[in-house]
Amino acid sequence: MIDLFIIKVGGNVIDNPVLLQSFLEKFAAVPGKKILIHGGGKIATRIGDQLGIKSNYVDGRRITDAATIDLVTMVYGGLVNKQLVAKLQTNGCNAMGLTGADGNIIPAVKRPVKDIDYGFVGDVNTAALHTAPLKALLEAGITPVFAPLTHDGNGQILNTNADTIASSLAIALSAAYSVRLIYCFEKKGVLRDPADDNAVINLINKEIYQQLLAEKILTDGILPKLQNAFGAIENGVKEVLIGHADDVLSNTTAKVAGTLIC
Amino acid sequence: MIDLFIIKVGGNVIDNPVLLQSFLEKFAAVPGKKILIHGGGKIATRIGDQLGIKSNYVDGRRITDAATIDLVTMVYGGLVNKQLVAKLQTNGCNAMGLTGADGNIIPAVKRPVKDIDYGFVGDVNTAALHTAPLKALLEAGITPVFAPLTHDGNGQILNTNADTIASSLAIALSAAYSVRLIYCFEKKGVLRDPADDNAVINLINKEIYQQLLAEKILTDGILPKLQNAFGAIENGVKEVLIGHADDVLSNTTAKVAGTLIC
Repeated sequence: MIDLFIIKVGGNVIDNPVLLQSFLEKFAAVPGKKILIHGGGKIATRIGDQLGIKSNYVDGRRITDAATIDLVTMVYGGLVNKQLVAKLQTNGCNAMGLTGADGNIIPAVKRPVKDIDYGFVGDVNTAALHTAPLKALLEAGITPVFAPLTHDGNGQILNTNADTIASSLAIALSAAYSVRLIYCFEKKGVLRDPADDNAVINLINKEIYQQLLAEKILTDGILPKLQNAFGAIENGVKEVLIGHADDVLSNTTAKVAGTLIC
Repeated sequence: MIDLFIIKVGGNVIDNPVLLQSFLEKFAAVPGKKILIHGGGKIATRIGDQLGIKSNYVDGRRITDAATIDLVTMVYGGLVNKQLVAKLQTNGCNAMGLTGADGNIIPAVKRPVKDIDYGFVGDVNTAALHTAPLKALLEAGITPVFAPLTHDGNGQILNTNADTIASSLAIALSAAYSVRLIYCFEKKGVLRDPADDNAVINLINKEIYQQLLAEKILTDGILPKLQNAFGAIENGVKEVLIGHADDVLSNTTAKVAGTLIC
């Protein structure tokens, strides 16, 4: 019996007012304890452009210089996060917007410079997560909503991958709750054929995963999500569900839309 | 015996790195349960200028149009608030940054348009404050840090006076705690002579207040603070302390720096 839903929603939903409204209604309707982790979306780039802060990417990853960490702290931690909270409140969900710095819930380490200097990017210090404040909020009927930001414990906010925050929180909280971790993205689930949006693989376990890897069916985009998912399962998370924001929240029974990983 | 300190710090401290660092160390050292409410500072105006958002003031009050509420949500609710949280964490204070929308703690009403349309400015709905989430945080050893923002319950963030948020929270929480409300500002306290920074009136009660009003000693700047203070006292707050950020937090005994109102 799942008693905590940890749900990650990406920038593609944040950027689309119609998708977002529909998602927030469905999220608010998920019964019981839940946590939302949101990505950034394109608005940081847009506001950064207006402020003369150039977005630099290497291999699809944003380089977070000093101006950029202030930008994403404003936009992700302020504008996006608080607007989500205000909207969830209208849907009857008592949301509270946080970053990993708040309550020292998610300490992180600035990524060491090897080939690439990612700047103010944080890798979650999974062993040091503080779940007590989160549990106090969940037990008080509050729904925490996390921006993709952490801190280094020395006063520096760090930009952090939202997928990783979601799986780290899911693992840490699986000691106290039976957790379903849900990744909402633009596809209906893991696809057997990338060209066929309806070719959803409904169930992936360790054996099927090895088989899919051997058949080279998995695309680059889905591989990190599956690695994250199996990492979560191996560390106590009950199940991971990957699918489209529109239908992956609608059922909480055994019959699921999307891809269930267990 | 005071068991909750509610402390408001203004933009003049937020804008000054040296004053701010000193203030945060002293704030972190205040023993027991405490809440911080911060003003905005000039950084919103600076970033707004870069974004082409013009700051409009009428009688010293910012007019909050649609672009400006997004701006202050980013800057006050994101940048300023989360940087304060990260800095307090380094000083051993387990801070959590919030707005009035978070946990639906501070519902507000968009100010009705009379002579002036203040735009997206919220007047606190004092009768509707939700203190349960705040109490859960305080009991869990967390220090809530509020940006001067509320919401209307219909998805709209509202810009709200930080002094009013502080007094509203103090009143609502005085049902559960013995509250000292502290206003930090640029003067050492209420002055008997505006030209003499050391002419601090150390104690003001109702009788002395009436006398000061009759003598026309109180300046326009201090009057709203005193009205707020007496409003708080009349509604259950144990005492209100007004003084300079540098020394008003240093003692928690009967002998106080600044002006004590009771």
